[in-house]
Formats: sequence, structure tokens, C-alpha cells
Amino acid sequence: MKLATLPNGTPDGRLHVVSRDLKRSAPARAAATLQAALEDWSELAPRLAAEYEALNAGGGEPFDPATALAPLPRAWQWLDGSAFESHGDLMDKVFGMTKTERHPNPLMYQGVSNVFFPPVSDVPFVTTDDGIDFEGEFGIVTDAVPIHADKRAAAGHIRLVVLINDWSLRKLAPVEMKTGFGWVQAKPPCGAAPVAVTPDELGPHWRDCRVDLPLTVKWNDRPFGAANGYAMRFGFDDLVAHAAYSRALVAGTIIGSGTVSNETYRTVGSSCIAERRGIEIVDHGEAKTGYMAFGDTVSMESRLPDGTPVFGELRQRVVEA
Amino acid sequence: MKLATLPNGTPDGRLHVVSRDLKRSAPARAAATLQAALEDWSELAPRLAAEYEALNAGGGEPFDPATALAPLPRAWQWLDGSAFESHGDLMDKVFGMTKTERHPNPLMYQGVSNVFFPPVSDVPFVTTDDGIDFEGEFGIVTDAVPIHADKRAAAGHIRLVVLINDWSLRKLAPVEMKTGFGWVQAKPPCGAAPVAVTPDELGPHWRDCRVDLPLTVKWNDRPFGAANGYAMRFGFDDLVAHAAYSRALVAGTIIGSGTVSNETYRTVGSSCIAERRGIEIVDHGEAKTGYMAFGDTVSMESRLPDGTPVFGELRQRVVEA
Repeated sequence: MKLATLPNGTPDGRLHVVSRDLKRSAPARAAATLQAALEDWSELAPRLAAEYEALNAGGGEPFDPATALAPLPRAWQWLDGSAFESHGDLMDKVFGMTKTERHPNPLMYQGVSNVFFPPVSDVPFVTTDDGIDFEGEFGIVTDAVPIHADKRAAAGHIRLVVLINDWSLRKLAPVEMKTGFGWVQAKPPCGAAPVAVTPDELGPHWRDCRVDLPLTVKWNDRPFGAANGYAMRFGFDDLVAHAAYSRALVAGTIIGSGTVSNETYRTVGSSCIAERRGIEIVDHGEAKTGYMAFGDTVSMESRLPDGTPVFGELRQRVVEA
Repeated sequence: MKLATLPNGTPDGRLHVVSRDLKRSAPARAAATLQAALEDWSELAPRLAAEYEALNAGGGEPFDPATALAPLPRAWQWLDGSAFESHGDLMDKVFGMTKTERHPNPLMYQGVSNVFFPPVSDVPFVTTDDGIDFEGEFGIVTDAVPIHADKRAAAGHIRLVVLINDWSLRKLAPVEMKTGFGWVQAKPPCGAAPVAVTPDELGPHWRDCRVDLPLTVKWNDRPFGAANGYAMRFGFDDLVAHAAYSRALVAGTIIGSGTVSNETYRTVGSSCIAERRGIEIVDHGEAKTGYMAFGDTVSMESRLPDGTPVFGELRQRVVEA
């Protein structure tokens, strides 16, 4: 099923079911908010699924993704991985990190979650001097996960798949990374595409708890990348189990894949500017591409091979705070 | 004024005003929850203060801190600093970090915030093999802070002072720290002492946006440390401004000082086991003190020089998950 949150004047918005083709929507009857649905998912998901099937058969109102909020406009927990090794290896070079060995566990940090910027919105930044960058990621949303759930149990708590734009400030990132404490200043709030989908909506493209689809990224409407989401070193089941090692995960926890990246990035493109700059450094000795300017836009989406839209389009513009 | 949250069957509990001597409490009339109070602090704080003064004059019910929830049983954001250099320097040695220069900015990571364990409670851990440790910290709670607030503006958004026990898993911490991503597994949810206080309750002991009081820590009822909170390299105003550099801070953001530590730790003691072990390594070449066992308790409190209790007592017991 496909779900979106439309504004109603409250912080959590109003949950809607959305037709498979993303053309129509109807207010969900089983739950008023996505957070409420996730807190009682086993009970409510079948009722939402019935509403979804009815909507696909007809009815509802026209759905305008540009008016939607993020599926979870605020969440209790956002944990971002970095599961694509072709990206991680390049970033280590760019940031001057010397990697002596492969980290045995998934890489993950906790980021700001009290706001996810709406799919189509202006996003405020203080200065372009900080190196404003986007990061196209796939992510998942869990219901409540018990502490120390193993990988198999973790997989069963992956309830929704989402598309995330993880805004990043590249001049600040290496400074914070070298402290060992992870990022606070370098990671402002993320954006999210309008529609969250259950894994079954991906059909065979939800594979090994990974999204086997390209994430199409455009910068100022010019194609920038279309890397495939399957190449994660660790699947989302691994990431959920990693996160739950010493904490129960609250319903509505969002976990990100990290920037989607493929080893073929020279042909398939990248999901963030920093990666392209890394390629330029490797190939030419210096980065030629700058970061984003005020007024720049980034757009992201992902479609099934037959053209069916999955998450709807994210389209965000950088503006001065 | 002094505030506490008592259980009422909801996740956020019921806000109470507490008398200065922590002996009596009454349900707050101006706000049902502390989160609600913080979301409209300028309007509601004067009304809560009037209720507090009335309670100090008489009335209310007996207050039993052991029944309280954390002041914010869940929060949208928990950012933990590490502002005590005597602690940081030792930890770098213990964790095998080579520090070539003083970091120019405050150290800070984002931790799990969807639950803060109640002040007097059993806290579940999976295994003692991970090196279970407490960390006694002072913390502050903000109302909404605009993006890029400077240090002076930040100081004005510090609304409450709290006492935090930042549970830590020491065997996991250096592994995660070396990734540069900060901690997820090594930092389970924190605990908090029962009472949050406005800075004026500390009188002259709220100084330069620091808590100039000892934080008394006992491990299994034996004195472990009484380090003073003033020795922060960066005050809480600096920490708030650091956190707000690229994000607006949501009302109810909690920011921690990091483990309270003094250069005189050999005489004043420590606020976590890892620091004592660090001292032992420096002095004797190896750590002699082990970490916590199932059934162990840690207790923390802080009092004014005249004996007035400030935050009430935190007393948590390590149990098997």
C-alpha cells in the first residue's frame, strides 16, 4: 500500500491512502496519523490495506504530491547508515581519512528527527560557505522493535520504504567526523519524498531487504545520477538489528541507507555532489564541481521499470535562512 | 521553580510543580505536560511560577521522587556534549586516540531521546560483557531556539536544568568512535533525576551558564565521586549555540554537559567508571576497577551548600534485558 501525510494544521498532519499510480488519495479511516498507524501496525495495516485496495478501484480526490508533508513530518528517531561502500571509500579519500581496515559493523549515526522538510519545499541554510549538498537515500520505517532483535526478527519490523534527501554541509562534515562524535552541525534536517510504501509495492525490486531500483537525482533539472539501491553492503535488516543492539526501537524509527552509490559511478552518476567531487579528485587531482547555491533545486524520485512512480517526487530548493 | 512529571498512563505523564524542599507537589494547572509548557514557555512559565510559589506557601500532596518519571519522559532531541577536558583527555588515552590538537568547537553527538528511564528504575541491559557504565551529567532543556542563534540568544533559551545519567557501553564506544560516526550501540537511553529546575533555583551556583555544584555519585551506595560542574570548557550557552548552528532546536531539546569531571579527580572522584579506569591506567599501567554487574545500582544527586536538594535522587539498577 501507499501512504502520504497531508497538512491539517497539526504537527503530524493527516494520514491518507494514495492510489498505486499516485493520482488519487483519501483520508485514512483506520488511523489519523502515520505515527498512530505504526504504533499499532499489526492491527491497523490490514484495515489500511483494505482502504488502499478500495481506492485503487476508484474514488478519492486528486492527489497533489506537491502539497504533501513528509510521510512522518516528525519522528522520534532517525538513524542514518552508510551502507554503500563505493561511496564510503571515496568519502574517506576526500575527507583525508586513512582507512586501514573495513569496519566490521554497519556505519550509523543518529540525526535530527523532529522535522523532516516537506517533499516540495524551500529549505533554509545560513550560508553557502558550508558546502551545501544533497544525499539521495532509500530508507525504511519500523514499528516497535524489541531490544536486541536479531536480523531475521528485524526484517519483520520493516513496515515502510521511503526516499530521503539527507541534507549535508560538506565543509563541516570532516571537522566533526574527526572528533569521533559524528555529526551535528553538518547534518541539518532531512527532506522526504511524499509517499511511503509497503515493501510489497516494490515487487521483486524489494530484494534481500534492499531497494533494487535506481534513485534518479537531478540538480537544477539536469540529470545528476541514477544509482541503484541494491549495492548495500548491509541490508536494512542488518541496519535495524544493528540499531536495536542495545535499545528498543520506538515505532516510527526511520533508518537510512546512506547515499546511494554504485561502483559504476562514472557512468551511472552520483546521489550527492561530494561523491562527484571525489571522483574528480581521483581522476583529475582536484574537485571541479562546486556545491549548491541559493536558488538551486534538487529533485529525486524512483520508478518501477514499467514507469510506475513509487515515492513521488522530492523537489527542494536551497534558500537563505 | 521546580517541576516533575508523574505517571498518568500516557507517554508524557502529568506535569507537577514541586516545592523547593521536594517534599510536596501539585498538578500543574497552566500546562498538562512539560513538553506543552516548553512549547509556550514565555506565556506559561509565569503562571507555573505563581503555582510554585503558592505551593511553597503550603498545600499540595506529599511528593515521592521514587514514583516520578523523567521530567521529559520522551524528548524530540537529546544532544550530549563532552565539555569537561579532564575527562576527555583521559578518555582519549583509554580509547587509544591520539589527540594532536584541541578541537576548536564543542564535542557533541545526538543520542536516543524517545525514552528517558525513570529516576528510580531498573534499566535493562543485554550483557555485562559490553562494559556497562554510568555517566553523571548536568543538562539543560531549551524552548524553541531559532536556527543560528548566537551564544547570547542561546543563553536566553535555557529554561531548565536537569541531572542526567548517560548510560554507556564501554567496550563498544571506541569501536564506534573510530568510525567517525559517533555512537549508536554504545549509548542506550539515559536516565534522569526526578526534578527539573529553573536556573534561578541554583542562585549563585548557576554561573556562566554552568552548574557550580558537586554531582554526588554513589555506586552500590558507596561514594564514587563528587566532581563540580563548573569546569566546563564550554558553557551551556556555547553548547546550545553550537547545536543551533544549522538547525532550529525544537522546544524540549535536552543538551548534556558530558561526564562531570575535575582535574582533581584523584581526590574528588569521578562521575563514571571509565574515568576511574583511566586514572588507574595512568597511575598503575592497568585498569583495576571493573564495570557494572547485574544488580548493581548507581545513585546521583546534587545539593546546594545548605543541603537543599536540587534535582532529587536518581537511583537506577542494572538488570538483565
